[in-house]
Amino acid sequence: RIDGKRLWDSLMAMAEIGATPKGGVKRLTLTEVDREGRDRFRQWCEALGLSVRVDAIGNMFARREGRDPSRLPVLFGSHLDSQPTGGKFDGALGVIAGLEVMRTLNDLNISTEAPLELVNWTDEEGSRFGHSLMGSGTWAGVYDEAKVNALTDVDGVSVGAALDSIGYRGPHPAKPFPVDAYFELHIEQGPILEREGKMVGIVTGAQAQVWYDAVITGQDAHAGTTPPSARRDALVAAARVIAHVDALMRARGEDGRGTVGFLQVLPNSCNVVPGEVRFSVEFRHPRTEEIEQLAASFPSEAEKLVSETGCRLQLREKFRFAHQPFDPACVDLVRQAAARLGHDAREIVSGAGHDAVYVARHVPTAMIFTPCKDGLSHNEAESILPEEAEAGCQVLFEAVLARANA
Amino acid sequence: RIDGKRLWDSLMAMAEIGATPKGGVKRLTLTEVDREGRDRFRQWCEALGLSVRVDAIGNMFARREGRDPSRLPVLFGSHLDSQPTGGKFDGALGVIAGLEVMRTLNDLNISTEAPLELVNWTDEEGSRFGHSLMGSGTWAGVYDEAKVNALTDVDGVSVGAALDSIGYRGPHPAKPFPVDAYFELHIEQGPILEREGKMVGIVTGAQAQVWYDAVITGQDAHAGTTPPSARRDALVAAARVIAHVDALMRARGEDGRGTVGFLQVLPNSCNVVPGEVRFSVEFRHPRTEEIEQLAASFPSEAEKLVSETGCRLQLREKFRFAHQPFDPACVDLVRQAAARLGHDAREIVSGAGHDAVYVARHVPTAMIFTPCKDGLSHNEAESILPEEAEAGCQVLFEAVLARANA
Ligand SMILES: NC(=O)NCCC(=O)O
Ligand SMILES: NC(=O)NCCC(=O)O
Repeated sequence: RIDGKRLWDSLMAMAEIGATPKGGVKRLTLTEVDREGRDRFRQWCEALGLSVRVDAIGNMFARREGRDPSRLPVLFGSHLDSQPTGGKFDGALGVIAGLEVMRTLNDLNISTEAPLELVNWTDEEGSRFGHSLMGSGTWAGVYDEAKVNALTDVDGVSVGAALDSIGYRGPHPAKPFPVDAYFELHIEQGPILEREGKMVGIVTGAQAQVWYDAVITGQDAHAGTTPPSARRDALVAAARVIAHVDALMRARGEDGRGTVGFLQVLPNSCNVVPGEVRFSVEFRHPRTEEIEQLAASFPSEAEKLVSETGCRLQLREKFRFAHQPFDPACVDLVRQAAARLGHDAREIVSGAGHDAVYVARHVPTAMIFTPCKDGLSHNEAESILPEEAEAGCQVLFEAVLARANA
Repeated sequence: RIDGKRLWDSLMAMAEIGATPKGGVKRLTLTEVDREGRDRFRQWCEALGLSVRVDAIGNMFARREGRDPSRLPVLFGSHLDSQPTGGKFDGALGVIAGLEVMRTLNDLNISTEAPLELVNWTDEEGSRFGHSLMGSGTWAGVYDEAKVNALTDVDGVSVGAALDSIGYRGPHPAKPFPVDAYFELHIEQGPILEREGKMVGIVTGAQAQVWYDAVITGQDAHAGTTPPSARRDALVAAARVIAHVDALMRARGEDGRGTVGFLQVLPNSCNVVPGEVRFSVEFRHPRTEEIEQLAASFPSEAEKLVSETGCRLQLREKFRFAHQPFDPACVDLVRQAAARLGHDAREIVSGAGHDAVYVARHVPTAMIFTPCKDGLSHNEAESILPEEAEAGCQVLFEAVLARANA
C-alpha cells in the first residue's frame, strides 16, 4: 500500500512553493516559482533513481525501467502549475501521487513488466498564456510548437522566452512517443462526488469546449465632455457580451458553462471613455452538439450586440474540442481498483479540461477523481482531506500496476 | 502681442516629453516623465527671471513681481500631467500660454501693478491615483493633505512616495495664499466651439460631478466545473452596473454623462469565474439637481443589481461637487478681451473638471476655452491649430493684464 502520510507531506512541501497568504498557491507556468517546483520535483525523482528528461515545451518525464524491454511505458501524472489564486491540489495531487506510486514500488522492491513514466505537463492551466493544456496539447500535436512558442503573456513575454529564462526548454522533441496507456489522478474541482458522498470518481470522459479571444474597439474620449450620441464605449459593448455569455449558459440549465474570466480595459482611466477592451470567452458542455451550436451562433450574436453600440468586435476562436471519451479498458481498470479497495465510487464526466483529454487522442487513457471541499477549485480555499488523497493515490497505484503487469 | 510661433514651438517641445507613437502624450502625474516636464518648465521660468516655488503637493508657482508691493498676485496656469493615452494640449496649453504671457511682458518691458504668478498644478487628470484635480483640490482644502499623500496607484505606489521619488515635494504649504484672481486657458475637449465655428469660449462655470470607487465581491471558481446555480460571478454583476450607468446617462439626453472608465478583474484568468471586480463610476451634468438625484438613487439601484447575482457591492463616493459658477467680473474680462480682439466667441459651461473649479472656491476665477478637432480629448489624436492656440493665449494675456493693472 502507498504511504498516505508521505504523500500528504510531499503535497504540503510542494504547496510551500508559491504559497499565498490566503492558504493557496500562485505557481504560474514558466515563472521562477514554477522553476522552483520543477527543480524540487526533479530532485525527488532523481533521489528515487528515475531518469528525468525534458522536452522542447518543458514537459518533464521521469522513467522507471520495466523487466520487459519490448513493452511500451505506462504513463501517469498531471501538472504542477497553478492559477494566480489557485489551490494546493489542482494538478499537484496527480504529480505527487505519481511520485508516491514510484516511491512505494521502490520500497516494496516491485519491478513491473512495462516501464513506468511519471509526467509533469507544462502550463495545464492556460492562465498565463491563454491556452489551457498547452504542454500536453503541443505534445499531442494539437498545437503547433512554433505558434505556441510565440504566444505572449500580458507583459509581452513569450512562451519561448519564458522556457529559456527558467532553463526548461529540453532537448527532447515535444511529440508523442509510443505509450501503452495514460492515467491521471486529479481533484474533481466540482461538487458532485462530495454531494453524493463518493470517495472516487471513475472519469469516463471530458466535456466539449470552445474558447475565444475577443477585442472590442471603440474610441477613447473625455468622460466629461463626450455626449451619449458621440460615444463609442468599448466597455459598455463588452458588458453586453458578458451578459449574453451568462444568458447562453443559463439557457442550457445546470450543464451549461459560459465564462468571461479575463478582461482588460484600455486606457483604463476613470475619466476616459474606454477605447478598447480585450477579453476571453469560453463555453463548455458535456454534449458536443451544444458546443457546435454555440460556436455556430455566438460569434454573429456578439457581433450584433457590439455593433449596436458603434464599436467593432474581433473574435478569434482559440480552440474547440468535442466531448472526449476515455478508453473503456483503462476506465475499467480504475473501476476495478476502486471496487477492490471498497471505495464508494461513481462514473463522472470531467467539467475541467485535463491533459488527459489531449493525450487520449493518441494513447488509451483514463482518469481518477477525488472529491474536494464545496466543489471549490481555482480558488485559494481549495481543500481536500488526507484520506481522500490517499484513496485516489491507491487507486492510481493499482490501475498502473495492473496495466504494467498485464 | 504674444508670439504665436514661439508659443507653438514651446508646446511642441513640451509634447516631446512623454511623446507616444500615435502622436499623443503619456506624462502621468509624478512619474519620471512628469519630472522631466516639470524640470523643463522650471528652466524656462528661471530663464525669464521668475522665481519658482513648489508646495507640499508639488504644485509649482512661478512669480513675476509687480510695481505695487501691496497688491495680491494675479494667478494663471493649468497642468502638465496627461492621461495614459492623452493629447499634447490638454493642460499643457494653459501652462505654456502662461509662459508666453510672461515672455511677452519681458520682451515688451511691461511691468504690471500686481505681481503675476504662473502655476502648474499637480495631478489634474486623476488617472493615476483616481482623484482628478488633486493638486488644486489639496491646495484649496477640498482634500486632506495626509489622505492625499496616502492614495496609491494600481502598483501600490503612494502619492507621497511618488512626490519624494521625483523630488517635487516642496517646502511651501499646500494651502490657499492670498490671490487676486485666477485665469485658466484650456482646450474645450468637447465639440461645441468647433461645431459653431467659434474661436473662443467664455467659460461661465463647470458642471456638477459625482465619482465613486466600486468593489464587487463574488467567488473565484472553476469555469468548467461550476454550474450556473453555484456561481457568484463578480464580472457578470459589474456588467449589469456598467449597463445601468450607461442607461442613466442616456435617460438624461445629450447633457447626461455616465462613465465606467477604469475596471480591474481578479484573478483575471480565462478559466476562473471572477471573484472580484474593482471599477470607477462617474456622473456629470450641468445641473446640480441631476447629480444630487443620481447620488441619492444610484447606490441602492447598483446594490440591487449586484445582489441579484449573489455578489456584494461596496460603493464609496470619492467626491461630489455642485455646478461651479465662475466670477462674473473675471468672466467679463475674458468677454471684453475676446470682443476687443474681434474673435467669434460664445459662453459655455465646462464639461471637464478643471483646477479652476476648486480654485474658484477661494479666488475670483474665469476660464478661456479654445476649440479642438472633432471635440476629441483624452485621446492621442487630440489636435488644435496654431492660430487657435495663439487666439486663446492673446485673450489670456489681455485678461491678465487688465486685471493686474486695474
Ligand atoms: N484542471 C484544470 O483546472 N484545468 C484547467 C483547464 C480548464 O480550464 O479546464
Ligand atoms: N480637463 C480635464 O481633462 N480634466 C480631467 C478631469 C476631468 O475628468 O474632467
